[in-house]
Amino acid sequence: MAASDRIWTAALVVIGDEILSGRTHDKNIAQIATWLQVQGIRLAEVRVVPDVEDRIVEAVNALRARNDYLFTTGGIGPTHDDITVDAIARALGVPVVIHPEARAMLERYYSGRGSALTDARLRMARVPEGAELIPNRMSGAPGIRIGKMFVMAGVPHITAGMLDALTGTLEGGAPLLSRTIGCWVAESEVADILRNAEQAHDGVQIGSYPFFREGRVGANFVVRSTDADVLDRCLGELTHALESAGYSVHPGEI
Amino acid sequence: MAASDRIWTAALVVIGDEILSGRTHDKNIAQIATWLQVQGIRLAEVRVVPDVEDRIVEAVNALRARNDYLFTTGGIGPTHDDITVDAIARALGVPVVIHPEARAMLERYYSGRGSALTDARLRMARVPEGAELIPNRMSGAPGIRIGKMFVMAGVPHITAGMLDALTGTLEGGAPLLSRTIGCWVAESEVADILRNAEQAHDGVQIGSYPFFREGRVGANFVVRSTDADVLDRCLGELTHALESAGYSVHPGEI
Repeated sequence: MAASDRIWTAALVVIGDEILSGRTHDKNIAQIATWLQVQGIRLAEVRVVPDVEDRIVEAVNALRARNDYLFTTGGIGPTHDDITVDAIARALGVPVVIHPEARAMLERYYSGRGSALTDARLRMARVPEGAELIPNRMSGAPGIRIGKMFVMAGVPHITAGMLDALTGTLEGGAPLLSRTIGCWVAESEVADILRNAEQAHDGVQIGSYPFFREGRVGANFVVRSTDADVLDRCLGELTHALESAGYSVHPGEI
Repeated sequence: MAASDRIWTAALVVIGDEILSGRTHDKNIAQIATWLQVQGIRLAEVRVVPDVEDRIVEAVNALRARNDYLFTTGGIGPTHDDITVDAIARALGVPVVIHPEARAMLERYYSGRGSALTDARLRMARVPEGAELIPNRMSGAPGIRIGKMFVMAGVPHITAGMLDALTGTLEGGAPLLSRTIGCWVAESEVADILRNAEQAHDGVQIGSYPFFREGRVGANFVVRSTDADVLDRCLGELTHALESAGYSVHPGEI
């Protein structure tokens, strides 16, 4: 495999009882997936686990062993249910320490608001030993980077700020490119055409996403490849095959 | 532990490259979590895996071993990327067969639309041997029940119809009750109050969900328990403690 063909992968552990109870609709999976694509890194798997230290440790250790990067979201605030730092330190076998720079950031943040750095707030300066901080302009609490692990907030717009700070700093491969065409057709009618188009082009995946709208069935077909030429060729042949079979093809998603 | 204290758990495997690529925002996690709560079943963990048979088999086997129920969503349509049935049959060590009733349902569905039951469409009648069907009024393709496993669609409104058909048919325990209060306060200021309230009441969990809105910080506190009396007592004491500390408590979510 040429160096340029190396596929970089990341996994994500979403930590939060509020996701598993249905109270909160997760937005971090899609946000992190989209951001990773642009960095040339593929999101390979996600686990959603409860606020239980053993479960976090188990997921972190399973996923970091087989991916280039590991992200977590949630559980880094000041309250008793925020146990992510302890779990990650345990997974890595290192102690939890107060990061002096994080402490200073929190002091500045709260004194600027005429407020004190209480013990609860100081919890947000706790990191696994050896960690660096990921700046966060939205609130006083930084994210944490330790080796190939990235510990982010649960609140999506805070995580967005942390991702912004990381943009361009992670080594990745060729980004997975994708192009979409749509058809007002039941996907089952064109299943053979899709399968043949995928098999005829190495390294291409074609996803079929059916919908039912305005009383009619249709489907979008997403063609993915890291090679722009192969992608174009596959898309052209798929479009031609659909049109030859009598279907009108919409350029882009319907 | 009394029989009534038994906690029933379910796990969910979300199957889909479109979730991992960020193209589609998952709605099934929240939908299934909410539905399970009402059945007295707790969603204990979720994994999102790609359309790769090995990965589906691995997740299914890991999660079914340690939960009362296992749900999957995605990958049960007629196209080449729909491999869920094959993966589950492999995980269970049973062959894939055509279910006669599913075949008849598909025949009726397509002949009613003046259309033929092609080979691709017949794929939707394939089930792991020993499976029963879960009716689906939205389209011809049924869901699948095999033992404690439930194989659902990826499209959320089709899964909603399948959940509807299952309502009241799964044994569960006492539902996890929850009540929410809100406060215009930084959660870090009341961290000790929250921790103390949780520790003082057996089997109660308190989640703290901060927000930043209209230029002010606030937080909602969700108190959860299977015991309505304990829940009420904890909520009363938490409210009193917050008010005694000078905070105004909003009944219900802010």
